[in-house]
Amino acid sequence: MPRYRVTLAYDGTEFAGWQVQAQSASVRTVQGVVEEALSRLSGGAEVRVAGAGRTDAGVHAIGQVAAFDLPASMVPGELARAMNAVLDRDVRVLDAGLVGPDYSPRRAARGKLYRYVLDVGTVQLPTRRRHAAHVRFPLQETAVVDAAAVFVGTHDFASLASSGGSVQTTTRTVRRSVAAFGPTPDMPAGRTLIYEVEGDGFLRKMVRSMVGGLIAVGCGAASVADLEEGLRARDRRRWPAPAEARGLTMVRVDE
Amino acid sequence: MPRYRVTLAYDGTEFAGWQVQAQSASVRTVQGVVEEALSRLSGGAEVRVAGAGRTDAGVHAIGQVAAFDLPASMVPGELARAMNAVLDRDVRVLDAGLVGPDYSPRRAARGKLYRYVLDVGTVQLPTRRRHAAHVRFPLQETAVVDAAAVFVGTHDFASLASSGGSVQTTTRTVRRSVAAFGPTPDMPAGRTLIYEVEGDGFLRKMVRSMVGGLIAVGCGAASVADLEEGLRARDRRRWPAPAEARGLTMVRVDE
Repeated sequence: MPRYRVTLAYDGTEFAGWQVQAQSASVRTVQGVVEEALSRLSGGAEVRVAGAGRTDAGVHAIGQVAAFDLPASMVPGELARAMNAVLDRDVRVLDAGLVGPDYSPRRAARGKLYRYVLDVGTVQLPTRRRHAAHVRFPLQETAVVDAAAVFVGTHDFASLASSGGSVQTTTRTVRRSVAAFGPTPDMPAGRTLIYEVEGDGFLRKMVRSMVGGLIAVGCGAASVADLEEGLRARDRRRWPAPAEARGLTMVRVDE
Repeated sequence: MPRYRVTLAYDGTEFAGWQVQAQSASVRTVQGVVEEALSRLSGGAEVRVAGAGRTDAGVHAIGQVAAFDLPASMVPGELARAMNAVLDRDVRVLDAGLVGPDYSPRRAARGKLYRYVLDVGTVQLPTRRRHAAHVRFPLQETAVVDAAAVFVGTHDFASLASSGGSVQTTTRTVRRSVAAFGPTPDMPAGRTLIYEVEGDGFLRKMVRSMVGGLIAVGCGAASVADLEEGLRARDRRRWPAPAEARGLTMVRVDE
């Protein structure tokens, strides 16, 4: 059976995350919706889809990578068009290609880029509420920009990992971690934090925990030194709560 | 009774437009939702809200202006907070102020600015589909940029007006009409058209008809001369179909 690799974009708002949930088959997941579409295109055959990363409920993607085997071969461009014709509008196939029988998006991923968008101001524009998080209180911008550097390098990120994962190690390498503030698009009195982080891999809720740390520093609840200490503690209870899912987008997988 | 003026922002996706529809009270409109919220804040008293302009179903706003009388006086800042506490999340009050008893947002409006966003490319990102329209085919960009100038000046825009309005004249003055193309945010192979138009007032579906004309020129179905002729004809049948509502935002009302 030929194996295909696709790049997927989705609006995570109405999904319970990427991964099919064995216990509750009725829950709408991106993996489930894509598998259903491929099954329809394959005359009812069961198709299993593997993703490069498991995004949580409410998290978006513009560059998720997935792979699957199909019972019959198709021209990749036609496969992408056919998938987009049957998929719900909140998932799109951006491109498709043939890969070798041993290709796995998880193993192929050497790095990932995530972006987090946070509107800062008294009132968030309704047109931004699905894809940007929001805090009402002002943030100390230079402190947030400085705090972002704390994550760069190889660290044990156990303090930032959600429990329930089955990872062998909580050590990850962060290659780039940059926070920047700009004017909020069209919002009279507000600023937007755009945080980008690139690394070899991320634990469950790790990026949202990073942003939770940045918000804590921005509102004066923690210092940069507190974050450094919290990271070294390797203890979730020593780290601020993760930021909302809706601000997070999986931007790119590097292979 | 004191009169208040508020600036409103809304995501038009789940509204049947601004105006309360007398025939079908069950239809969800922005005016209706705001009137309901104000009635709740006024102990059940009926409150009537007037808007600067009537946006159609699916059209968004980040600077709609509205006014109403309240039975009891409130500090404007508190009024804004109280309204945001009871309003649905897809409508927000950006600011509130006291105005004189003769103030009318419709009469006070000397001009309006609308913005239209159109993604051009094979596949639109799901995260952009609520607030940007989309065409699959490429557009001749310089032709579109040139065509935008056709609307500047004082013209009888009868060709671009939807029927059913009760306006006395279809002549309007357009002060600025500018189309620009840029890279689509995060979309690998695509461009985005951002069209901004400012004028003393707009007929029903006029801005969407303008964009319909620009798209016709961009895909080669009409020339700039055809648009000029269609405008002079003062006949709707001589003008291309209006573009989708979801790309349109009422940005600002000038008083």
